[in-house]
Order: sequence, then structure tokens, then C-alpha cells
Amino acid sequence: MAEPVGAGLPADVTSMVGVLPAGELEALVGAFRAYEAALMTNDLEALDGSFAPGGATLRGDANGLLVGHERIAAFRGLRGGVAPRRIVELHVRVVAPDAALIVSVSAFDAGGTGLQTQLWQRSPDGTWTIGAAHVTGAPPALNRSVWRVAGAPLVPPAPVPAATGSSAAVSDSGPLAGASGAGSLAAASGAGSLVGASGAGPLVGSFGARPLDGMTVAVKDLFDVAGYAVGAGNPVFLAEAGRASVDADAVAALRAAGAAVQGIAQTDEFAYSIAGRNTHYGTPPNPAVPGAIPGGSSSGPAAAVALGQASIGLATDTAGSIRVPASYQGLWGLRTTHGAVSTRGLLPLAPSFDTVGWLTRDAPTLRAAAAATLPATEGAATALRAGLVAAPELLEGCAPEVADAFRAFVAGLGGAVVEVELGGLDEVFAAFRTVQGAEAWRADGAWVAAHPGAVGADVAERFEVAAAITPGQELDAREVLRQARQRFDAALDGRVLLLPSASSAAPPLDASAETIAAVRAATLRMTAVAGTGGYPALSAPLLHVPAPGGTAPLGLCLVGPRGSDLALIDLASDLA
Amino acid sequence: MAEPVGAGLPADVTSMVGVLPAGELEALVGAFRAYEAALMTNDLEALDGSFAPGGATLRGDANGLLVGHERIAAFRGLRGGVAPRRIVELHVRVVAPDAALIVSVSAFDAGGTGLQTQLWQRSPDGTWTIGAAHVTGAPPALNRSVWRVAGAPLVPPAPVPAATGSSAAVSDSGPLAGASGAGSLAAASGAGSLVGASGAGPLVGSFGARPLDGMTVAVKDLFDVAGYAVGAGNPVFLAEAGRASVDADAVAALRAAGAAVQGIAQTDEFAYSIAGRNTHYGTPPNPAVPGAIPGGSSSGPAAAVALGQASIGLATDTAGSIRVPASYQGLWGLRTTHGAVSTRGLLPLAPSFDTVGWLTRDAPTLRAAAAATLPATEGAATALRAGLVAAPELLEGCAPEVADAFRAFVAGLGGAVVEVELGGLDEVFAAFRTVQGAEAWRADGAWVAAHPGAVGADVAERFEVAAAITPGQELDAREVLRQARQRFDAALDGRVLLLPSASSAAPPLDASAETIAAVRAATLRMTAVAGTGGYPALSAPLLHVPAPGGTAPLGLCLVGPRGSDLALIDLASDLA
Repeated sequence: MAEPVGAGLPADVTSMVGVLPAGELEALVGAFRAYEAALMTNDLEALDGSFAPGGATLRGDANGLLVGHERIAAFRGLRGGVAPRRIVELHVRVVAPDAALIVSVSAFDAGGTGLQTQLWQRSPDGTWTIGAAHVTGAPPALNRSVWRVAGAPLVPPAPVPAATGSSAAVSDSGPLAGASGAGSLAAASGAGSLVGASGAGPLVGSFGARPLDGMTVAVKDLFDVAGYAVGAGNPVFLAEAGRASVDADAVAALRAAGAAVQGIAQTDEFAYSIAGRNTHYGTPPNPAVPGAIPGGSSSGPAAAVALGQASIGLATDTAGSIRVPASYQGLWGLRTTHGAVSTRGLLPLAPSFDTVGWLTRDAPTLRAAAAATLPATEGAATALRAGLVAAPELLEGCAPEVADAFRAFVAGLGGAVVEVELGGLDEVFAAFRTVQGAEAWRADGAWVAAHPGAVGADVAERFEVAAAITPGQELDAREVLRQARQRFDAALDGRVLLLPSASSAAPPLDASAETIAAVRAATLRMTAVAGTGGYPALSAPLLHVPAPGGTAPLGLCLVGPRGSDLALIDLASDLA
Repeated sequence: MAEPVGAGLPADVTSMVGVLPAGELEALVGAFRAYEAALMTNDLEALDGSFAPGGATLRGDANGLLVGHERIAAFRGLRGGVAPRRIVELHVRVVAPDAALIVSVSAFDAGGTGLQTQLWQRSPDGTWTIGAAHVTGAPPALNRSVWRVAGAPLVPPAPVPAATGSSAAVSDSGPLAGASGAGSLAAASGAGSLVGASGAGPLVGSFGARPLDGMTVAVKDLFDVAGYAVGAGNPVFLAEAGRASVDADAVAALRAAGAAVQGIAQTDEFAYSIAGRNTHYGTPPNPAVPGAIPGGSSSGPAAAVALGQASIGLATDTAGSIRVPASYQGLWGLRTTHGAVSTRGLLPLAPSFDTVGWLTRDAPTLRAAAAATLPATEGAATALRAGLVAAPELLEGCAPEVADAFRAFVAGLGGAVVEVELGGLDEVFAAFRTVQGAEAWRADGAWVAAHPGAVGADVAERFEVAAAITPGQELDAREVLRQARQRFDAALDGRVLLLPSASSAAPPLDASAETIAAVRAATLRMTAVAGTGGYPALSAPLLHVPAPGGTAPLGLCLVGPRGSDLALIDLASDLA
């Protein structure tokens, strides 16, 4: 390749290789400048026009690759403009008479630099448009939509008991040293890899190794971490909260097993949503489906794990807050048996349904986190009665492609799945919502009422409805749930219920409020079964549905009898 | 542009537009696969061969753009391999019979995805090589070479006194909401922009606005932040340290003026280095010179500011720890008059020389930070006697291009600069090092001795030398410095001494230990003048020297009489 040539170039061209037909360099650089100007004014029409039409156009950044003009335009409509910047380097590489790569470096007014690579192509009508673009912005100190606070790590593992030597400080600087060091048991080599994919029990204490050595945890901002306040996704609540003096039990269990706390991760406000959006800190990315919502309320821990920024998301699930983000992002997620894991140090939402659980990228890591936390009696894993069941009525509110994917999976099991009837799901869902609302109001209502305007609109509306629930309504609803639990126990009879983890794949970021509300209601109707029964529910990333540009993940949900938490993970590992 | 075509493609090609000559698609994809395989084994020879030779080849990522095969190969030699990953999408866009863009998405074994865009070109001998590449890796939760801990923000500004309303919580979620929101006064619009570039005094309290509203601070890990321990760049020291109960005075002053603490940023161990490297947490990037060291010891605050991740770096300068990273990274940096800013809550290195100061991207922000912190008597700014001076003997150890750049700048001032003689610089440097070493050993020696192997090799060696300094040697050195201070006071006579901030631009990451040591000695000989005199010293990014691929920044250092801190900033703003 020739050396860069500089003579006679426009002043803003840093280097150029190759030659374009007469006048075309000026036309190309003019198109580049016009695009940059449109970015600065967020002129969506001009920006759309700068990109080549059709389904093959590419645009990617740290949040993923978008394929096709339509998806790129949709992304741009939601982005809300680019931070002010100026171009400080502009390199032109001519590839053909009608094609050139432009690589440019930008300097942001607010500091930091960006890098843009664009393939420009001239159409027959003489217009230069972008056929592919790769953008790197100036990275923030941390992604505040994912993390409220993060460290290197934030809190080291608990010290190893004296007999096995090595101090906490060594763990601090040891296995966590790599920039992308948020390991998992399936991927790991070296420290922490003593638990095989077969799901063998962790070897606590042997050779000084602990089952979660080298692992990092993203703690949902509902759990106490010693020295930190709980923010519950709301900065006003955070500012008024006191610092915890000791770790929540669920945090302490992971640290005792060798994991470090990478940071405290964001949640939908007071965990009272399954969308994964937060007015104050922004919506975390969904790395599995660029341009889609992440699911919540454990949005921060889920995104942190999916991004490889933590090995384990420590989260909660009241009405789907672990299962939904796991489903939307292709993660493993376990809602534990109600009452099986201590909630000491956890901010409650609705104690009748609140459970602790974890999100991971693979089953062995999930099993290790669960085994490190569940009491030994649970660790023994209630044996599962042979038999899988499904309830067709659970699919009624699902998107057709979700029902199709689920039915195809069940069909693939070759008749092993027996149909059962749960009955009254709409009534159960309504009752669940009523009891959840009444308890949420008791937990947070006084604070919400005392801080008008402090809570985001969707969650505030939910609290408003909750505030109006009467004691009589709550009592009636509890009776509905009591009867449903007996009915479900009888129908499931110790077997494992299979269903999709959510009513749809992750909706796009630009979905209407009506769509989000409809998807939410349909999903909660499904997730309420485990909540009502106090059952453990595992979301395993075993399904896929068609999506723009390929497929999107969908969780297969396994609901087992109370106490079968670990056995569910083993069963799903076998199914995978 | 046509829609993607899938029929008859290799199985790993997700989409393709355009047609290549017979056999060439297989050759291209084969070259892509071979490159990916070489990445996984870090086969440097194969990787170098995959990139087109010559000075026009491009490779960029979040740390900047490298131009030319040679610089790319040097980068690769230092990188130490790419994290294990697999390609999950591969899009081919044929641009010409001998050129194609490949955009690929990778999934890392440790979680997260990456994006690669490569322009492949076929040379006349039929070989496909990469002419330009743009890489986005999976971002970590935070860059632990820059930050020990960071938040959204970590600590909000101090509450506004009651009379002016608005609570800390509002500040928390208000002006800091943007992902790239680390503003500066020069770039800002809206909150915090009441201090103009003219250097007008801050309007404290007017309209409820504070001079640093909307600003964020990267606090060097030597200052107390309430609730956090000081780590001093060493994880073992951190693990043993207790949490501070109140902010250091210098932290409190910035928070009282409206700034939030973005996080605690890394330092060379115990601040006893000017290179900016840390064995435990890694070397922060130098955004101004990709592939170069950042300078230290205030490496983390400097990189955070240069990256746009904080508005202000709160730092210390004992022997150049603010001036050197400012010079290497094109930042403004002020070492204050010795004793002018309280060091309460600061871990000492050598109290006879330790000073507090700040790093910023522009002069108005630096002035606002300084004015918010310096006592009112200092804020009045000692008037500067008309007159600039330079001492040719200070250039003796400088790189030729540094001396050239400095002389050219001085020449541009048209005879305004008078030559003075300081005298005995080598002797002063030796004495400075002796006193600094003796005090550093008193500050940290007991800890270092009690923790063999806990400190990185270069800093450990420095402490070893320091441990051998006798009381007699220290006394003699103090007398040398006392006499030098009288001599310097007389020679400068209230005027401002100009000199380069460092003996060279930022050395490359792969510089030998000998080169680093030589550059260090030459720089310390220059920085010791301010340390010896207790003078304030400002590094302003007003010089440039030739560097591979363009120019590299170099600081112009202004050393003024004691108490002239703010006046120096105003003077440099005029010179700029």
C-alpha cells in the first residue's frame, strides 16, 4: 500500500491513500461534513438520508451491531443526539472509484475522544452514502444505567479462614486483575474452576480454594453492602438512606464463598417493574438484543452479567424480576423457593412473594452461587418426581412466536411432557397484583407519599393504584391465592412445570407504553404461578424466537416444587 | 444497495453483499479466520503479516487511533493477547474485486460482546491483508487502571446552605445525568458556567449557583473521602486501611463549591514515581498520545480528566506528580504554593515538598477549582512583577525537540523573556532526592519493610535507596536546599520562570527501564526548582513536539513567587 499523500488535500483531511475521479473527493468530504453537522443538530432526516437504504446497511458500537436501515433509523430516533464534538483527524482510504473508507477521530467538548469508521459508497445518481459504520464514543467512568457504584473490586471476598492461609488482599489483586476478568465457571481456567459443568458439588475449603474464587458479583441496589446505603433505583431515596454496617446475608454468603463485590447495580425503582427502565439513571443495554429493553427489575445485575462485567448478578424476584431479564438477555436466572434464602438486609417490596436469586451466563456458575447460599438442607436438593408438565392456558397471552417456540421445544422432548390444568389464571393474576400492591404500599407508600414527584411516572402510577387497595380487597385476594396454591400443588404434584419465562422476547426500546403494559400483564399472568405457590423458578436460555436481524433469546422456565432449587438447575442443564 | 444474499455462502458468513471473483470469497474468509486464530494464540508474526505494510495502515479502538504498520506492531507486542472469544456474526460487504469490508461480532468466553470492522484488500500477489481496523472490546465495569472506585456519582456535592434551597439529592440526579457529563467551564452551557474564560471570580452563592455546580472530581487515592479507605495505589495497603470518617479538607472544599466526587482514582504506589505505571492495577491510557505512558504519580486523575470521565482531578505534586501527567496528556495542572492548601486528610509522601493541586482540561475550570480551595488571602492572588525569565541550564537534560519547542515559544514572546542563572541544579536535584527519600521512608518505610514483596519493583527499589539515607546526609541536603532557595528567590525576584514541564513528551509504553530512568532524572532536575522554592508551578498545554503520527503535547511550566497561584493561571491564559 502506498504511503499517505497530503498535497492538495482539503485542509481537514489528515491523510489519504488512492485517487478519486475529479471532484469526487470534495463531494465525499462534503458528504462527511454534512453528516457530522447533522449529528450535531440531531437532524434525523438528514442522518437517515446519509445512510444507504436497504436491509444490508450496518451500524455498530459498544452496545451491538444494528443491521438494516430501518433498525438504524429507529435507534437514532431514540438516541437523542450526539455530544458536541469536533473532528480532529480524518483519514480517507479510496477503495474503488465509487467507494472509500473514512476513519475519523473526534474530540468531545466535554473531554475524551471518539473514533468513527465509515464505508462511503457513491450511488449511480452520484450521492455518497454510508453503507457501514462503526462508532466508538468516549467511555464514561462507569455506565450509570448499569452501576450505581463499582470498584476494582468494590469489596474483596471475605478473608479465608486462617487454616487455609492467603489474605483477602491477595484475592483483591489476584484473580480479578484482568480488565475482562468477570469469569464464569464454564469459561474459567485456574482459580475457581473446581466445579465442573456436570454440576458436581463445590469443594469448599479443599486446597484453600473456595467455590466462587475469582468470581465477581453485581449486587442489586436493594441489598445492604457494609459501608454503603441502599438506593433502590431512586437518587432521592439514596440521599436520605444511611450506610449499612453489615452485609445482607445473601451478600455475605457469596463473599464467604470467595466472590468479590464488583459493584452495586441498578434496579427499576423499588423493584416495582419488569421493564428495566429507570428515569433517573437511564435504561441499561440489552447486549443480547441491541435496541431492546433489558427487562427488570434486576436490570443492572442482568446487564452487568451479560456484558461480562460481573460473573454473578445478586438479585430479587417478586413477580418475575429475575426471570424476565434472564429471558430477555439469554441468561440463566433462578428465583429461589420462597423463604429458602434469608432476606435480612434486603429492602422489601412485597414480603409474601419476595425472593433472593442470581443471574449468570452459565448453569455451573448459577449452581455454585445457589449452593453457596442455600442452607445445607436445601443444598441436598429435594428429589424431583419424574415428570414434566405444561399448562396450555399459560400460553394464552403469549406472542404467537413465543408459543410456537415453546411448543416446538416441548415436542422435541418426545411426549415426556404431560398437560395439566392450573385453572383461574386471570383471577390469580388479579389477586397476586392486589396483594403485591398492598404490601408494596406498606413497604414504600409512606416514603412515596412524602416525596411527590420523586418517583418515575410508571412506578408512581403503580403506587397510586396500590394506595387505593382496601383491606377487604386484600383479604379477598389472599383467599384466592390460598386456594390457587392448593390447586397448583395438586396439579403439579411434585413435577416440574415448563413454560416460557415471558410472554414475548425483549420489546424494542421504542415500544409504546401500551405495548409495554400489555406485555407486562401477559408476562405477570405467567410469572404469578411461582409467586403464588412459593415455588422456585428457573429461567434457562434454551429458546429462541425470530427477531429483526436474526433471533432473540427467550427463557424456558422450569417451576419445581418448593425446595427443588438445585435440582431444577441440574434438570435444565440436562435439557440444554 | 442490494439486500444481503445468503445462498451458497460459507456457513460462518452471516450476510454478504456483492460478488468476488471465483475462489476469492473463500480466500478472504480464510484470511479472516487465520487472523482470528492468530489473535487467540497471540501469534505476533502472523498478526503483523495480516496487516498491510506501510505507513497508511490504520488500527483504532477506545484508546485511540494508531497510524502505520510499525506503531500497530509495537502496540500489539505490548498487548499480551486478546481474551478468548468466538465469532458469532460475520458480514461481508464487497467493495471492489480486490476489496471488502468485514464487520464481525464476537462473543467473549468471559461474557460480553465485541465488534470488529476491517477493510481487507487483496495485493497483486493475491494475499488478503487488513488496511484498516476498528475494534470495540467488551467494556469492563470500570477501567481499574484509572479508577479504584467510581459512582453515579460516588459522593454528591455538599448540600447547598439552606437559604438557597435545593438539596444534595437534586444535584445528584441533575446536572450529572448525561453519560458524558463530566463538564468543564470552557465547554459548559447551563449550570456551572458562571465563571467566564476571562477568569472572572466565581459568584459563590449568587442565584443559588455554586462555582463548581455540575462538575465531577476524580480524587487521587491519597485523600480521605468519608466512608472510604485510602489505598495509595497498593491493594495490600488498602485492605489494611480503615475507612475515613470525614473528607480531606481539599475534597470538602470542592464539594462545598458544588462538585460531586465521581470516584477515587489510581496513583503510582505511595505517589513515589512520575511514570504513571502501577503493577497492581495496570497503566492508565494516555488519550493524548495513544501508546504512551500517562505520567504520574497522579496518573488516574489525569487520565480520568483527559478521557472526559471527570471535570477535575484532585491530585498532589511532590516532585512533579501533577506537572508531568499534565504535560504528557495536554492538560492544565497546578502545583500550589507549598503550605497554601491544607493537607489534612492527605497521606503524606514528603511533607517538606507535598502540595495539593488540580488537573483540568481548560484554564477556567482549573481557576475555579483553585479559587474554591485556596484561602481568601491566596485567592486575592499575589500580584506578579512584570517580567518573565528563563534559565538555559534547565534545558540541559531535555530532549532536543523539547528544547527546540520551548525556545521557539520564548522567541515568539519577542524578547519579553530575560535569561537568569539559578546555579547548582545537579546538586539541588541530588539534595532534593535525598530529603524526599528520607521523608518518604519516615512516612511509609515501616509499612514497606513489614510487607516484603507487596510493592512494585521500581517503587520498592526507590524505598530501598531511601532506607539507606543517613541523618547526616539528610542534614547536608537540607542545607543545600536552604541555600538554593535563597539563590532562586534572588534570581527570580518575584518574576515568573518559564521552562518545559518535563524533559520529554510522554515516552512510549515499550520504552526501556533505562530510558524511563533517564527521562525521570532529567525531569526531576527541572521540577525540583519549584519543590525547593515552595513555589507554585503551573503546567499549561501550550507546547507541542513532533511525534509518530503527528505531534505530542508538552507543558509550558510557569513557576511564580509563593502565593501567586491564581495569577499564574491568569497569566498562562493570556499567553495561550
